[in-house]
Amino acid sequence: MDDISYKTYKNLIDEHILDFLPEIDHKSITLYDAMKYSLTAGGKRLRPILLLASCEFVGGDIGTAIPYACAMEYIHTYSLIHDDLPAMDDDELRRGLPTNHMVYGEAMAILAGDGLLTSAFEAMNKDMLLYLDDSVKLKRRIRAIYEISKGAGCRGMVAGQVADMEAENKQCSKEMLDYIHFNKTAALIAASVRAGAYLGGATEKQLRDLTGYAENLGLAFQIADDILDVCGDEQEMGKKAGNDEKKHKATYPCLYSLEECKAYLKDLTETAMSFLECYYDEAEFFNTFAEEMVARGK
Amino acid sequence: MDDISYKTYKNLIDEHILDFLPEIDHKSITLYDAMKYSLTAGGKRLRPILLLASCEFVGGDIGTAIPYACAMEYIHTYSLIHDDLPAMDDDELRRGLPTNHMVYGEAMAILAGDGLLTSAFEAMNKDMLLYLDDSVKLKRRIRAIYEISKGAGCRGMVAGQVADMEAENKQCSKEMLDYIHFNKTAALIAASVRAGAYLGGATEKQLRDLTGYAENLGLAFQIADDILDVCGDEQEMGKKAGNDEKKHKATYPCLYSLEECKAYLKDLTETAMSFLECYYDEAEFFNTFAEEMVARGK
Repeated sequence: MDDISYKTYKNLIDEHILDFLPEIDHKSITLYDAMKYSLTAGGKRLRPILLLASCEFVGGDIGTAIPYACAMEYIHTYSLIHDDLPAMDDDELRRGLPTNHMVYGEAMAILAGDGLLTSAFEAMNKDMLLYLDDSVKLKRRIRAIYEISKGAGCRGMVAGQVADMEAENKQCSKEMLDYIHFNKTAALIAASVRAGAYLGGATEKQLRDLTGYAENLGLAFQIADDILDVCGDEQEMGKKAGNDEKKHKATYPCLYSLEECKAYLKDLTETAMSFLECYYDEAEFFNTFAEEMVARGK
Repeated sequence: MDDISYKTYKNLIDEHILDFLPEIDHKSITLYDAMKYSLTAGGKRLRPILLLASCEFVGGDIGTAIPYACAMEYIHTYSLIHDDLPAMDDDELRRGLPTNHMVYGEAMAILAGDGLLTSAFEAMNKDMLLYLDDSVKLKRRIRAIYEISKGAGCRGMVAGQVADMEAENKQCSKEMLDYIHFNKTAALIAASVRAGAYLGGATEKQLRDLTGYAENLGLAFQIADDILDVCGDEQEMGKKAGNDEKKHKATYPCLYSLEECKAYLKDLTETAMSFLECYYDEAEFFNTFAEEMVARGK
């Protein structure tokens, strides 16, 4: 994506990604190193970028949304660290680099994940202390943080991980697959967009439209990932292809032909974009972003 | 402890402990079962009891503090589940029952811990939505939740777990041991008391005094635990004695004689109580609570 705002958002995140970790005592410096390792291991920053873009789209000040954007990346990164653990997906490589537990050991990887998740909430709660006397901005922040906690939790990402794990080695229905993908991926993507919208002071209509966009985008994103796992370039992905099949994961390519998956991906992407049609050019960033999703799975 | 308020507080927690978990879809019901299993496995509820007691001590309404008290127990419970994992302390028994991963498997135990930690913040954030138009109560809640996130995180409990793990099999200084115990245990106990105090609308002096009490109580609590591990009754503890020595954990009984440990415990407990002397009978609950700590390690 060569859109200027994509780069601007990504640079902002990359620049500030370590700023909202608590000041850690040298006695537990390995914890800091382990968290930093995964935070700076080349993530695409999609969720925080969407949060910033959504905040700006509704007229908000993205500078003040940065703590929430970084917190979102802390949550995403914790989920990857725990997901890669031997007891979970048992992955040795992520984005072309050894996974956290391969470098720091399993115990430290568990704690680095726990530390990142807690730091995400600590950072957002700390930010709220700055707005104790501005009730409008405070309310926006409380709503944003609640969206993020819901999307990351037992009605969102964690639920998706559980269902994903339980579906391994089983015949999986389309309904169950949609549930898994919606929760595992789309919930946190929708939470990012909704949190950004709340922070920026979105109207009810803007919030509804952005949510529709994000939920469909999130599903598209996961399907593109599934397709990539079947026929992607290992070098480009930074991990081995065919992983899902080897692990008997429930994915769309197990249930449908590749052509059908690609058609579903295109369909979801178009549905996502349709939610923002009424904003014409103002939604250009989100349209380009969605088109990139389809391109990945092509 | 047969103090009437102890029972009242404990009953309140036991009664409401599952109320603040999010409504979980039947597709991820195992997640709910795994979280429920550890939440109802006979915990003493010390941290939430201290939160309620502290709220009431400063004149607050404990009914409105229950979500925060339960969230505190969710955080404590997640930390036990992760701590018991094979990659961490590898414990098979906790409070006389099989540990979470022995029942639900390692992957589900990791996710149950993640789910509990996220649910704690989700519950507290959701509660804040009820007070959007009451700026006094809202500020108290924001301060309480920030205390909890700090105490649970990388400058608190997680830092303590990391230092504890890294100190295994090593000669450990008194300074390092204090750091480990302060962070691993006292930080969350102090956070419970401070959060309760904020929720109840404490004055600066009350907050300072309660903090001094809780920090010393927290250290005393960990030393009592260390002593119990050396010479406690297995039946009563619900787990094997001699665990710490077997794992070459850094504890006070490795550094000092049992007599010295008991003297240190007594000293810390007295220091804890001294912070609340000026409140005379009003601090009776906290004094009884602290005395019980010494009695455990006797």
